[in-house]
Amino acid sequence: MMDKTDHINQDSKAPIPDFQVRDLDGSSRARSGVFRTARGWIDFPFFMPVGTNATVKTLSVEDLSDLDAQIILSNAYHLFMRPGPAVIKAGGGLHKFMGWDKPILTDSGGYQVFSLSKLRKVTDEGAEFQSHVDGTTHFFTPEDIIVFQGVLGSDIMMLLDECAPYPCDHAHAQRAQKRTTLWARRSKEFHVKNSPGSKQLLFGIIQGATFKDLRKQSAEDIIGIGFDGYAVGGLSVDEPPEVMFEILEHVEQFLPKDKPRYLMGVGMPDQIVKAVSLGIDMFDTSIPTRYGRNGSAFTSRGRITVRNAQYTLDQKPLDERCDCFACNRYTRSYIRHLVNTKEILGLRLLSYHNVHFYLRLMREIRFAIQERRFSQFQKEFLSLYNSPEQA
Amino acid sequence: MMDKTDHINQDSKAPIPDFQVRDLDGSSRARSGVFRTARGWIDFPFFMPVGTNATVKTLSVEDLSDLDAQIILSNAYHLFMRPGPAVIKAGGGLHKFMGWDKPILTDSGGYQVFSLSKLRKVTDEGAEFQSHVDGTTHFFTPEDIIVFQGVLGSDIMMLLDECAPYPCDHAHAQRAQKRTTLWARRSKEFHVKNSPGSKQLLFGIIQGATFKDLRKQSAEDIIGIGFDGYAVGGLSVDEPPEVMFEILEHVEQFLPKDKPRYLMGVGMPDQIVKAVSLGIDMFDTSIPTRYGRNGSAFTSRGRITVRNAQYTLDQKPLDERCDCFACNRYTRSYIRHLVNTKEILGLRLLSYHNVHFYLRLMREIRFAIQERRFSQFQKEFLSLYNSPEQA
Repeated sequence: MMDKTDHINQDSKAPIPDFQVRDLDGSSRARSGVFRTARGWIDFPFFMPVGTNATVKTLSVEDLSDLDAQIILSNAYHLFMRPGPAVIKAGGGLHKFMGWDKPILTDSGGYQVFSLSKLRKVTDEGAEFQSHVDGTTHFFTPEDIIVFQGVLGSDIMMLLDECAPYPCDHAHAQRAQKRTTLWARRSKEFHVKNSPGSKQLLFGIIQGATFKDLRKQSAEDIIGIGFDGYAVGGLSVDEPPEVMFEILEHVEQFLPKDKPRYLMGVGMPDQIVKAVSLGIDMFDTSIPTRYGRNGSAFTSRGRITVRNAQYTLDQKPLDERCDCFACNRYTRSYIRHLVNTKEILGLRLLSYHNVHFYLRLMREIRFAIQERRFSQFQKEFLSLYNSPEQA
Repeated sequence: MMDKTDHINQDSKAPIPDFQVRDLDGSSRARSGVFRTARGWIDFPFFMPVGTNATVKTLSVEDLSDLDAQIILSNAYHLFMRPGPAVIKAGGGLHKFMGWDKPILTDSGGYQVFSLSKLRKVTDEGAEFQSHVDGTTHFFTPEDIIVFQGVLGSDIMMLLDECAPYPCDHAHAQRAQKRTTLWARRSKEFHVKNSPGSKQLLFGIIQGATFKDLRKQSAEDIIGIGFDGYAVGGLSVDEPPEVMFEILEHVEQFLPKDKPRYLMGVGMPDQIVKAVSLGIDMFDTSIPTRYGRNGSAFTSRGRITVRNAQYTLDQKPLDERCDCFACNRYTRSYIRHLVNTKEILGLRLLSYHNVHFYLRLMREIRFAIQERRFSQFQKEFLSLYNSPEQA
């Protein structure tokens, strides 16, 4: 059993640290606390709704405020392509451009360069690729991405990394891991030199695919350079979930306890709960909005596909345990009708509800950790989540 | 010049009428007042946002409340096709189904049967047609439409009419006009007999295409039967605007002064202002939401196509004279980006703004009439509306 005070910042003479672990679950590695960014404190563990194109799909910033989102995520690659730096700059930075004044984390777009665009050439200097939007050729260096995130003014910047696919061989994974380290060092040096005293935090990303030796090496290298937080990248890229969690558990042991830990692009609600139990603080995924636009709702009893015929006359809300505005006023029958007639309100209600589900889950996780009952919460959550309603 | 008290209900001993003209402009036929429905009083002249599929496209009922919409319109034909009577009945009627507790007018769908579906056969008995959704064959009698609107529970029902196309010959128009009268009589008789004491109002529709003799005949016939209000149908169906207004002015002289007058499916903001000056009280059109989804915004200086390149860096709101939530927080530059990346929020912001523009216009019209300065308002509105911004 772990020492319950093991991770807690206790030195009362020290200045208030920007990252404070305040509670440890004890029976798992789950931890909660507060994390300071330029635009305010965030309670962790937290979930970041994904706003790829400077909007969380179907939702307004008023919706996000109502939902009590603490922070959202956007994407440098996408914003570089559209609307481009000139438009963001004219708009006064990303926050002002989109009307959101709380924290924003921007992903570098490393993942998008390697997955979405047509990759032309990757060298240690940078990556040449064709835009997925209009086919134009671009060349990104790690420094370019820092400069652009400076234009965006995001509160947390991610560095440019090379994300290996799954499956890939050891040699490929090692090349990507080494290059990620090289780019990480250049990113850090560039940021420190060009923006001394910047309040924009910079996170490192640990790569190494599914190879434990490479993950260890990457963790040591990236942590050695020193960042404001550490992300585990290159997971949830088609590998089986058990492999993902094995690698995550392996990486976690190398992560410093006094910095935020971010599992990128994960995942389903049960995966988030599990990753919290392994000591992860930060999450993002487009799942709630993407599934919402496909007619699915996350509920306390699992996911339902509300466009299915069985909900035609169903007068219940999407989730009887939910108090969001979609559940307060609208029935499954009505939302099913909206989805089937391709009405935008249906996509919005489902997206809103699903983001609410994720954000409420994180609140419940935090309360459970604070009350030292996270393992019990995890058990109860999964038990209900895996018990579909009787038809 | 008209007598200013000409149209006002003045007999203090009479019970409060459900339709009260309270103010006359004096220098035009414009009038304002209040009109009672089962779900409350409505100030006229008014505009009904169009919610064809039991949703005003892109907007929630919370949005409509924020927008101060007094009444919305839905469509019996569309709702009969999807979701169908069983779903609406199970949902407790249209208001409960869609979560809207203010008045609803339902169009019969006569226009849709004759324009949208594949018409199979029209007899005096009714119309046989194929659904535009799934090709299934249906037969609607005027009585069926009253029964279905009873299921919907709309506050104002429209009767089934036959809408002639433009252009059409006199014989065709006359057949449609006579059949509309026949159907109107049956609708009224059926409603009175089957729902004595019903609080659902029933409106007659005047047809006759662009032929003045037929319009006069139709007005006399329909008014002779007696309805709770009178609609002018079959206009804005491709005829030139000057023809539309000529016919409207012709029909208006036959309309009783103590009943609401509804110009169906009209129109652009300047057309609404003009129709008010001709004595019309009620309007509906899908223009604000349809143009919004196409990237256009109505502004006090005319319509702008915000997806155009000239707005790329434009930091102004859609309309500098507007105080809606889209204009309070979002710039043209941002909304243009949303539209160009096909983000749903962009369609919603434009739809919201445009509906706000229409509803605000109606408020300004009412104030202007109440203050006996409608003609001045009309002049000033058109002068600004027809002066585009300098690029």
